[in-house]
Amino acid sequence: MDTIQTDHYPIFFDNTIAELISFIKRGNYSRFFILTDEHTSIYCFPLIKKEVDEIDNYDLIEINAGEESKNIDFCIGIWKMLIDFGADRKSLLINLGGGVITDMGGFAASTYKRGIDFVHMPTTLLSQVDASVGGKTGIDVDSVKNIIGTFAQPKAVFIEYDFLKTLSPRQRLSGLAEMLKHGLILDAAYWADLKNSDLSLPSAGQIHASVVLKNKVVTEDPTEQNIRKSLNFGHTIGHAVETWSLMNDNNPLTHGEAIALGMICESYLAHKKTGLSAEELTEISEVIMKLYPKYRLKPSAYEAMYGYMLKDKKNLDGKVNCTLLTKIGQFNIDNVCTQPELFEALDYYVGLN
Amino acid sequence: MDTIQTDHYPIFFDNTIAELISFIKRGNYSRFFILTDEHTSIYCFPLIKKEVDEIDNYDLIEINAGEESKNIDFCIGIWKMLIDFGADRKSLLINLGGGVITDMGGFAASTYKRGIDFVHMPTTLLSQVDASVGGKTGIDVDSVKNIIGTFAQPKAVFIEYDFLKTLSPRQRLSGLAEMLKHGLILDAAYWADLKNSDLSLPSAGQIHASVVLKNKVVTEDPTEQNIRKSLNFGHTIGHAVETWSLMNDNNPLTHGEAIALGMICESYLAHKKTGLSAEELTEISEVIMKLYPKYRLKPSAYEAMYGYMLKDKKNLDGKVNCTLLTKIGQFNIDNVCTQPELFEALDYYVGLN
Repeated sequence: MDTIQTDHYPIFFDNTIAELISFIKRGNYSRFFILTDEHTSIYCFPLIKKEVDEIDNYDLIEINAGEESKNIDFCIGIWKMLIDFGADRKSLLINLGGGVITDMGGFAASTYKRGIDFVHMPTTLLSQVDASVGGKTGIDVDSVKNIIGTFAQPKAVFIEYDFLKTLSPRQRLSGLAEMLKHGLILDAAYWADLKNSDLSLPSAGQIHASVVLKNKVVTEDPTEQNIRKSLNFGHTIGHAVETWSLMNDNNPLTHGEAIALGMICESYLAHKKTGLSAEELTEISEVIMKLYPKYRLKPSAYEAMYGYMLKDKKNLDGKVNCTLLTKIGQFNIDNVCTQPELFEALDYYVGLN
Repeated sequence: MDTIQTDHYPIFFDNTIAELISFIKRGNYSRFFILTDEHTSIYCFPLIKKEVDEIDNYDLIEINAGEESKNIDFCIGIWKMLIDFGADRKSLLINLGGGVITDMGGFAASTYKRGIDFVHMPTTLLSQVDASVGGKTGIDVDSVKNIIGTFAQPKAVFIEYDFLKTLSPRQRLSGLAEMLKHGLILDAAYWADLKNSDLSLPSAGQIHASVVLKNKVVTEDPTEQNIRKSLNFGHTIGHAVETWSLMNDNNPLTHGEAIALGMICESYLAHKKTGLSAEELTEISEVIMKLYPKYRLKPSAYEAMYGYMLKDKKNLDGKVNCTLLTKIGQFNIDNVCTQPELFEALDYYVGLN
């Protein structure tokens, strides 16, 4: 699989462990740190341990797994570990994990001593197709997702396909939602390819295609003035439902499950507002509902979810903005959606079988 | 006094309140926030209250005064206030205060929603001559000073001379240390002007001259590869003594008092290592000792101070680096100083009358 050269750094798909080792050696780092969570330290770190042990001069920093860890308290924990280990400005942080690790590790590194180098080795499908491109870091404060963060680019990304085999089916489904999104907003042919595939384990080629699509968008519009907003499709409603679920459910939705739900609701809005046909709305809903379990969305939670939408950093002036489809493969940004419209969209999801 | 145009933003010296109001109006901000501490809300905010009230649509965020507030917990408090007030990406943060407010407010703004606009209205001499230029933000973690931060530029800086009249003599002396530093490292004539002036209240022209000097350095070397390191003169030892004092003294040293002490010690190192003459060392020591009270530096604290120097973000590979003078008005960067040399320099200070 070709290495993707973004504006700022390469994304390696082949021989990733050898590429990582070669990167570390070339960088003349005083030392390096590997950020893991309790899962990736067991399932992923062993795949690289032998090679990094040979370089030596590194320490592991491990945090709890799960979205609840992506908050400022854990970030402070990472900073304190770096201080205690004596990390200097020529240190390197390797983020080995899913989106929590890459987002928070990126933030911690980009602010430690006003910025040290970091690279990502994303271990989940979600982080491979989403967090690996774009240069956004972030943490949650008061359960408001990614409210604090920086724009900071990793020095390289290493996408190791074998890590995906360590994931549960549910974790893979979480990443799949972003891949479906890339097709829906940007590439009807890719969407058609996905919907006709066995998606229990997407192919390496499909992952590569998603990264190419996302990189294209981010390169054209790094500061999210226009086309990058396409990536928000499904996320205005999806993030709000995800936040609510995280705070209220014993077994909360994954990011992808919430985004899948959000894409259905926002496709409904697109049908009402930006010309998505009824057939396309039905197709999107059916593909997603076949893949993802139905979430018991409670109308009593709508108000709270609307509150989260208003706090979403994408929104200005107390108005909720959505990126909507005009047809499959094409989008339209900055559609202000009213509270009744948003509630109607949630109702549409509730009414699906 | 001329407005200084830095690479990124203007620094206003005249009609600062009118300039601030005009800036806010031009910016089309959805709303703005004024960050103050318990002192600046009493002594400085009233000077601008009438004018900002006329614009309306703002909130005050007040934190405790003092260096102890410049930590991550207070920063989280600012973020939470911004969240609770519903600050969006088109919000503006006005930092009205000393270095704690400008450093921490800059950090909070540069990371809130991955960055909102901010401006500084520095109210202390120290923040006017130091924090107003350079685009560094920072907070302390575990008492390690400025260990976490970003490079982020304000949109404008407003230097109001009248604020200085609200300061205690001790606060003015704190800022004076940075002015003396600017002379010592960059401009022998300016040093001579300062040492022959009544420095109980530096003139507006002297403040302007310091800002011009600092801006020149920062513009030539924004990422601190070489000449910007000149600004670290006095700070390797000064920061360590300041940190120790903050953690151990009931009435801790101000930043400037610590830097004044650090400049004496590092001038001693310069005499030993980089050719500063005995006469110049004596002149520097005498000028500073006449202005600043003698600090009772305890040899039993040297080890702990050395530990802080090693953790200083400027240092690499477990070595302590100092910027030293070769003569008054000229400097030399990256001088590795050993523990015995640093202790000898502290001893030199202890031996002064």
